[in-house]
Amino acid sequence: MTTGQTAFTRRDMLRAIGLIAGAGAMYQAMTALGHAAESQFTGAPDLSGAPRGAKVVVLGAGLAGLLAAYELERAGYEVQVLEYQNRPGGRNWTLRGGDTYTELGGATQTVRFAPGNYLNPGPWRISHHHRAILHYCRAFNVRLEPFIQFNNNAFVHSTHAFGGRPQRYRDVAADFHGNVASLLATAVNTGGLDHAVTQDDRERLLEALKGWGTLDDSLTYRKGLHVSGQRSYARPPGAGADGAPLPSDLLPFHDVLDPVVWKSMKFFTSYDMQPTMFQPVGGMDMIGKAFASRLPHQITLNAKVTGIAQDEKGVTVRWADTRSAEMHETKADWCVCTLPLTILSQIDIQVSAAKKAAISAVPYASHAKVGLEFRRRFWEEDEAIYGGISFTDQEIALVSYPNDNFHAAGPAVLLGAFALGRGGYDLAGMTPEERIEAALKQGEKIHPQYRKEFLSGASVAWSRVPWMLGCRARWSEADRAAHYQNLVSMEGRIVLAGDHASYMAGWQEGALLSSLDAIRQLHHRATAV
Amino acid sequence: MTTGQTAFTRRDMLRAIGLIAGAGAMYQAMTALGHAAESQFTGAPDLSGAPRGAKVVVLGAGLAGLLAAYELERAGYEVQVLEYQNRPGGRNWTLRGGDTYTELGGATQTVRFAPGNYLNPGPWRISHHHRAILHYCRAFNVRLEPFIQFNNNAFVHSTHAFGGRPQRYRDVAADFHGNVASLLATAVNTGGLDHAVTQDDRERLLEALKGWGTLDDSLTYRKGLHVSGQRSYARPPGAGADGAPLPSDLLPFHDVLDPVVWKSMKFFTSYDMQPTMFQPVGGMDMIGKAFASRLPHQITLNAKVTGIAQDEKGVTVRWADTRSAEMHETKADWCVCTLPLTILSQIDIQVSAAKKAAISAVPYASHAKVGLEFRRRFWEEDEAIYGGISFTDQEIALVSYPNDNFHAAGPAVLLGAFALGRGGYDLAGMTPEERIEAALKQGEKIHPQYRKEFLSGASVAWSRVPWMLGCRARWSEADRAAHYQNLVSMEGRIVLAGDHASYMAGWQEGALLSSLDAIRQLHHRATAV
Repeated sequence: MTTGQTAFTRRDMLRAIGLIAGAGAMYQAMTALGHAAESQFTGAPDLSGAPRGAKVVVLGAGLAGLLAAYELERAGYEVQVLEYQNRPGGRNWTLRGGDTYTELGGATQTVRFAPGNYLNPGPWRISHHHRAILHYCRAFNVRLEPFIQFNNNAFVHSTHAFGGRPQRYRDVAADFHGNVASLLATAVNTGGLDHAVTQDDRERLLEALKGWGTLDDSLTYRKGLHVSGQRSYARPPGAGADGAPLPSDLLPFHDVLDPVVWKSMKFFTSYDMQPTMFQPVGGMDMIGKAFASRLPHQITLNAKVTGIAQDEKGVTVRWADTRSAEMHETKADWCVCTLPLTILSQIDIQVSAAKKAAISAVPYASHAKVGLEFRRRFWEEDEAIYGGISFTDQEIALVSYPNDNFHAAGPAVLLGAFALGRGGYDLAGMTPEERIEAALKQGEKIHPQYRKEFLSGASVAWSRVPWMLGCRARWSEADRAAHYQNLVSMEGRIVLAGDHASYMAGWQEGALLSSLDAIRQLHHRATAV
Repeated sequence: MTTGQTAFTRRDMLRAIGLIAGAGAMYQAMTALGHAAESQFTGAPDLSGAPRGAKVVVLGAGLAGLLAAYELERAGYEVQVLEYQNRPGGRNWTLRGGDTYTELGGATQTVRFAPGNYLNPGPWRISHHHRAILHYCRAFNVRLEPFIQFNNNAFVHSTHAFGGRPQRYRDVAADFHGNVASLLATAVNTGGLDHAVTQDDRERLLEALKGWGTLDDSLTYRKGLHVSGQRSYARPPGAGADGAPLPSDLLPFHDVLDPVVWKSMKFFTSYDMQPTMFQPVGGMDMIGKAFASRLPHQITLNAKVTGIAQDEKGVTVRWADTRSAEMHETKADWCVCTLPLTILSQIDIQVSAAKKAAISAVPYASHAKVGLEFRRRFWEEDEAIYGGISFTDQEIALVSYPNDNFHAAGPAVLLGAFALGRGGYDLAGMTPEERIEAALKQGEKIHPQYRKEFLSGASVAWSRVPWMLGCRARWSEADRAAHYQNLVSMEGRIVLAGDHASYMAGWQEGALLSSLDAIRQLHHRATAV
């Protein structure tokens, strides 16, 4: 990093390198400048020179479809969006009091949350490196607030450790660090690593382990006030005659090695999950609504696509009005299809066998979420937990606390389950009432206040969501190798988009990056002479 | 933790244990119940039965004085607060555009920040376990927002490592973890720790190290996409034909052992500093203002205390009006003196030699802060840094980014220096203009945009603050042993309070806990027959 060189200059230079020498060269240049790339987002797309009167039909009004429609419309294309649901947004979705939702199987839930409370059944957090979605939030004045995510005072709970008692993250993490540091220091000092570490680095390493791991002079991790300064106190520092702190007991090493401990630690430091993260103030659907408000005449709701055909002259989409069952045909020059693969694989679409194989190849995950409303914020009042996540090895997987309106009186909603894998399928097999009971039963192992304070709940098991049939694409390496390029390349007048057509399945950022790539391909073809 | 047992019951029981068997037994009981104490705060004080007409003079309108005045007034005491400055709040202080500040030596700064921007020269963050200050924030409807503190995308900068180039925290932390895990796994596998770890735990430990440290099957920490998923990518995951991620290069192990790396890691996981933390929306002084607004007639400003006398009948405080130089005397039954020890040690106070020795014993730290206003939030726009702290081994010590109004257009203020120790003294020795130049010169090593985007700055070197002569008490263990109990015990009609009379010097929480203890002592004595 050289001084005096401004970010603008650097950015312009990188863009130039990207244009001239390709993306690979640009990323190399960025790394050489000490700037690993944050994102594949390179700014709003340049779609200048759109042909007059060219029409694009966009299938699906999730974020991928909405972005495509918004940018193509701005560029001069005529746009029509066909959306199956009676609202735009897709998985960019927020459930509030009064909302109803009917899942596959026919169970209908009416949400009873108090005004202002909500559940984001789909995406619920935005990373600082999700530059595309942050770009549009900024452009549309969607207010963001921190999604706390990582809270050292939240719990880690294992049914196989600590006698089943939830532990504060700070305690288990400090004890993990301390034990690891002490063991490694022992190994260094007994010469066991002389082949692996130079003499100079051995001394640096010992200093680092002593500091980072809060070891004593004998390089042991031991109960004491210094260690409590990294974990917690039996009696924390205070004032007056009894103000002196008392150290806390360490946890058994065997239990500290429980997988839920290091999996939690790893989760919070992973590239996708590490702070700073965000949520829109008031609910995730503020983003979809911001897009949709800029497309006041372009979105046709309640439109179930049944067929997508193309020839040299254009695209024809057949669809049914889900209220009247009346059939329609929409003709356009181009088509951006953002339907999830679970749905698209059941629709007659005129593309190559290779693309059809790609569309059918990828299975979808079946996550399930349960939102629980409680009379009061007992996690804040009783346990000093403000936002963030407690992890458990039970099927609910976690309890995530609201990141807004701290200290507010009255009811609040927390995420009482985010079940993945087997847990997701198990919750999907239950009625909505049974899901809430499961979330209460497992959650009260962490928060005994649950039963007394509970008001109502709402759940979404994604395999039962009629317009998704799953939560997100689950790409295997083999499927990537066989099908990804076939899926994302434009074929004739049709291009697919959505988080499934990205390396960020399940993230809104993936949907937006895919959509940007798709409309660039479309525009390139539409403007080729 | 047993199910069905509510928090209310637990809390009530603990309070009962505390009342009957004392604080020590209560803390033991809390630990036994799986709940380490969060704080020595046990709720608003019970001061019932205040004698009619009893008057208390409170010296100093910082948070300790304000709390004492507020609670004593509520309990029925007659209260008068004497404050040296022309505003209440003390170090609970926020500088905004238009504010002026004159330091010792005579230099006057007029702050030129844009409306809404501010610098908190004193306390700037509140921990989730600061239950006393959070109690009053809640009671007074002081709105809180997260103080991000820990941001994996902020920088770690050392003049002795990485060629002087700032590195993202996530990269250095991942490489530190990965190398430590791999070395320890090697030591375990070569039998070097067989004496220290049981066979069963060795297997658990290896599994944990592999997972936590993102090691490959040979238990090596190696460049690759898995590792990039914990640190960063050369090209992050995206969409379209070039959507595949590319792994990033690891940092040299020698550099990863630089002290600024593990010191940063340790800082963010320390009990005092770990998330969740808070700041009041709009500036820290919202708390002092909330207290002061509840004491509309009790506070006398511009009152310089010159003597504090007591006898069997009462207390007499001599003070000068700093505007007129007129001398006054205030008589009261009791006195809560919250003046900092730097000031109090220069005032004639009628207490024992032991207490006088305590008052004179404790040195104060000399921290210095510099706030810098820039044209735009380049750290957000160019570097995806939203809130949090970048650490450097230069004297400025850190750069801390605003935690509010993300994505806002227009100027924003960051904390460009929080110099401690030697650095604090060096900055105090400079003129305000020189401090800003130092902050710019050091800060641009991290952010080359500094010079181009800079608008104005403001600084506070605490050793030059006329009403403090330092930032906070620095208690040594020897001073604690010799003087602490003498300092905090009520003597006759005078009791001292303030963060200096606590084990949390420099924290507002310490001031409040001390004040609560002081007024309980006072009330106990005032109601003793």
